[in-house]
Amino acid sequence: MNSLFSAHRRAFLTALLAAAANAAIFRAPALAQSDPLPSWNDGKAKQSILDFVVNVTREGSPGFVPAPQRIATFDNDGTLWVEHPMYTQLAFALDRVKDLAPQHPEWKKKQPFKAVLDGDMRALAATGERGLVELIMATHANMSTRDFERIVTDWLSTARHPRFKQPYTDCVYQPMIELLAYLRANGFKTYIVSGGGIEFMRPWTERVYGVPPEQVVGSSIKTRYVLRSDTPILLRLPDVNFVDDGPGKPVGINSHIGRRPIAAFGNSDGDLQMLEWATKAAATPALALIVHHTDAEREYAYDRDTHFGKLDKALDAAKLNNWTVVSMKDDWKRIFKFQ
Amino acid sequence: MNSLFSAHRRAFLTALLAAAANAAIFRAPALAQSDPLPSWNDGKAKQSILDFVVNVTREGSPGFVPAPQRIATFDNDGTLWVEHPMYTQLAFALDRVKDLAPQHPEWKKKQPFKAVLDGDMRALAATGERGLVELIMATHANMSTRDFERIVTDWLSTARHPRFKQPYTDCVYQPMIELLAYLRANGFKTYIVSGGGIEFMRPWTERVYGVPPEQVVGSSIKTRYVLRSDTPILLRLPDVNFVDDGPGKPVGINSHIGRRPIAAFGNSDGDLQMLEWATKAAATPALALIVHHTDAEREYAYDRDTHFGKLDKALDAAKLNNWTVVSMKDDWKRIFKFQ
Repeated sequence: MNSLFSAHRRAFLTALLAAAANAAIFRAPALAQSDPLPSWNDGKAKQSILDFVVNVTREGSPGFVPAPQRIATFDNDGTLWVEHPMYTQLAFALDRVKDLAPQHPEWKKKQPFKAVLDGDMRALAATGERGLVELIMATHANMSTRDFERIVTDWLSTARHPRFKQPYTDCVYQPMIELLAYLRANGFKTYIVSGGGIEFMRPWTERVYGVPPEQVVGSSIKTRYVLRSDTPILLRLPDVNFVDDGPGKPVGINSHIGRRPIAAFGNSDGDLQMLEWATKAAATPALALIVHHTDAEREYAYDRDTHFGKLDKALDAAKLNNWTVVSMKDDWKRIFKFQ
Repeated sequence: MNSLFSAHRRAFLTALLAAAANAAIFRAPALAQSDPLPSWNDGKAKQSILDFVVNVTREGSPGFVPAPQRIATFDNDGTLWVEHPMYTQLAFALDRVKDLAPQHPEWKKKQPFKAVLDGDMRALAATGERGLVELIMATHANMSTRDFERIVTDWLSTARHPRFKQPYTDCVYQPMIELLAYLRANGFKTYIVSGGGIEFMRPWTERVYGVPPEQVVGSSIKTRYVLRSDTPILLRLPDVNFVDDGPGKPVGINSHIGRRPIAAFGNSDGDLQMLEWATKAAATPALALIVHHTDAEREYAYDRDTHFGKLDKALDAAKLNNWTVVSMKDDWKRIFKFQ
């Protein structure tokens, strides 16, 4: 009986191991066959992403890139979430001016605040970049980083996009959410590299995009370490520290990541240098992709002639350099989860 | 036979599952029983580390901290590697001056370069911080980030520590290497937060410490994005961007990580604010640890009265705040791998 049991045991063990081995062998293709980008229509854009990922992740392929070097950088405004009719952070600043106005009676007569309180966007625009910086400093500085985080979180929980009537953090592009997840599932580290404020994004990027605070790069104001009755805080100062836009993006990437991305995603001229940095003179295969806003019906249609998210030089560069251009209208089956 | 086989099969399967379950149950304690810090002598310092890690990683414990929040920040000079008789990066700058001198005949008569070429450290010290900055700019700027990386890597491959006659990257503290690995094995993300140059460290921290470039925070000079015959480079400018020392460390941590560390490791007054930032007003258990250089025989002995790595206020703060102070002489069984 003992030896019979042993024979059975051996046979069973062999069968079990074989089953386990088969399961392991079939696991990869089985997963690969399900569509990792279900909100994307089949076409050149989707195919260029899939081809790139297969190329850099297949061990032994000439394009193989080890996982630690698989850095992907994403612009935020207009690439991951809506940037029309205005950048969300500007909508936040305008609301903050209204909230803070009772403490600043002088704002009723002082630009750019008067324009905001009067709802006069033309007068606001006339104050130019200087007016904008003043607006940002008055609403973003002179508080601790922790207080600012709370203010941003509170605002996002109640503010709604004027057209879609949804929380701003729901006005994110479902195809891009899938793309972020697909890249991460293939060993990529996904970063946000945005002209927007780094501390305006960090409170919610992990929940919304799966991107933790340490993988967010953005513009910033200076901070100062202060002990307040023995409790340390970082005080936000009304002084620009870094502008993470245009040629600032490769600088921000180098400062925060210290590696070149092998994949970069943007939608405007502010992303041009980041796309160049990722692809020109790259030692490995590299992907540059531009989200082109072509869908006035489901979202917005704009490129060369717009205030927020102008896409002009980068669109020409895409043609010249054979970068992937995504037409939101044609390449995306679905834009928002709520639609 | 079929039913007999089935009975055996069921019995065997049950046994197999039980064995697997046992293996899983016993795995954790079995690992915990082997010493994760073999180069540390038993004592208060080692115990405080072990207790802290158990406290924050045991699920259900009141001190439990979810893995994404387990951020540990390490100073570099004097905490992870030797900083006497001078900071390694200064030794690098002095060697660079000698290498570049033939292209700069004017340096023979111009301070601080003359002092370096004459080997007159007293005259060099007399040029003060201004002389030091001039030295750094002349040796660290006006080249691409890629060229600088190559220069650092080349220098480290041949330079030797004057006393230990070993490559500088071997003059790292074995107990701290074990500590880095122990924290990572327990779900911590380990960062370097150093007053040293970020681009001086990144080329080798992954190989030596297991810390990838994106987890290195340090001082920096400004860079500018430039296209050179259609190839993008980042040009290093002779202009200080950020000093990651003293009150700059919490600023650098916030900028790069966007989370508070729950464990911080330093050895000098330059680390005081980082240790405060990690522990004071922390919402979770937090560990602050100071490496005290007490071993003139195996390494160096210094604290309140030294030029490189002065430990004065932070030593008083450690006593006051009950931080862990490591005596290299007493707490470390072994300092270097080569000893």
